[in-house]
Amino acid sequence: MTDTPSAELPAGDVAAALEFFMEADRLKGVERRNWLADGSRRENTAEHSWHLGIAAMIFAGFATEPVDVGKAVCMALVHDIVEIDAGDTFAYDTSELSATKRAREEAAADRLFALLPAAMGEHFRHLWEEYERGDTAEARYVMAVDRVAPMLLNMAEGGSAWREYGITRARVIDRNGKHVEPALPGVWALALAQLDAVTAEGKLPPE
Amino acid sequence: MTDTPSAELPAGDVAAALEFFMEADRLKGVERRNWLADGSRRENTAEHSWHLGIAAMIFAGFATEPVDVGKAVCMALVHDIVEIDAGDTFAYDTSELSATKRAREEAAADRLFALLPAAMGEHFRHLWEEYERGDTAEARYVMAVDRVAPMLLNMAEGGSAWREYGITRARVIDRNGKHVEPALPGVWALALAQLDAVTAEGKLPPE
Repeated sequence: MTDTPSAELPAGDVAAALEFFMEADRLKGVERRNWLADGSRRENTAEHSWHLGIAAMIFAGFATEPVDVGKAVCMALVHDIVEIDAGDTFAYDTSELSATKRAREEAAADRLFALLPAAMGEHFRHLWEEYERGDTAEARYVMAVDRVAPMLLNMAEGGSAWREYGITRARVIDRNGKHVEPALPGVWALALAQLDAVTAEGKLPPE
Repeated sequence: MTDTPSAELPAGDVAAALEFFMEADRLKGVERRNWLADGSRRENTAEHSWHLGIAAMIFAGFATEPVDVGKAVCMALVHDIVEIDAGDTFAYDTSELSATKRAREEAAADRLFALLPAAMGEHFRHLWEEYERGDTAEARYVMAVDRVAPMLLNMAEGGSAWREYGITRARVIDRNGKHVEPALPGVWALALAQLDAVTAEGKLPPE
């Protein structure tokens, strides 16, 4: 991909890449449950994905497994793109929506990645599937970053999204600790200390 | 950065990385001039940076120079982070604001990158400075992507931001063509065809 002279690429491929680029713009309109740290509005999935990319850059030195930072950053940018069709499923959702998440996201991946030139579409699909399987160092690392990032935003904002959905300290730990602690123990320790402080302030119930 | 065991890093570094992560959240509140493709609202710089990261992944095969995609993607994520302090300067701005852009962004870089653990701060600073200098293949490539992306959004949306600021087809070409055409000639050709169509429809004046 990095050494293909443009003259060898059929014009149709450029048009396909542009079509995907324009379709990707819709991720900016997918609203997540959590709020920005300043509480001004809820976060959208595009800016969340940017923030994860930055986090994947700055937390890599704290990871327990060596990770390919460039690959992890690309995975972070791509991992939620299926939400263009499938919408955001709240991390703590236990409803029917959560049960259908996989099928909705598979259908979205089929449609969206097929817009791209074939080799690039396969590259995006593989990155997304690797993240979903969670069976490589980068997938485990990006999953950890993806779990700790909204925790940090929720705590900074004061926990509105958690209170809105009746989330407790115990559920936050149960849902996120198993991913964050093994991959990023130092980050988890500080996040947990913040969680305890927010709990002590009465912003979310212990259980 | 990819092979540092977390045990060797002082705890203070994790706190510094978390502080930068939280500060970065503010980029989601920096409003740009151009609109999302669906015209629903103006774009913010965080989601713009995500979109550039995706574009840096999908356009790499069309670039005239070989580029390190992982590096280009990281550069795209970092290149506008100084706007947290300095704000967005419109690409077509010719006012005093444009004249002070460099100094405002340097001051922002001094403050923001100093929040990070030292080695990571230097890495971010170098990526940003390389982009600003434009003297490597990745910097030229990311600059081209950064110039064509808002063009594509503006054209899809119908040109509101251009009309609002009295931008003509000639200025769009003058401002962007010199960066996009040498790096991404195939993308530029399709963007130019779209620009001609939008001009023919009367959505922006030729000169």
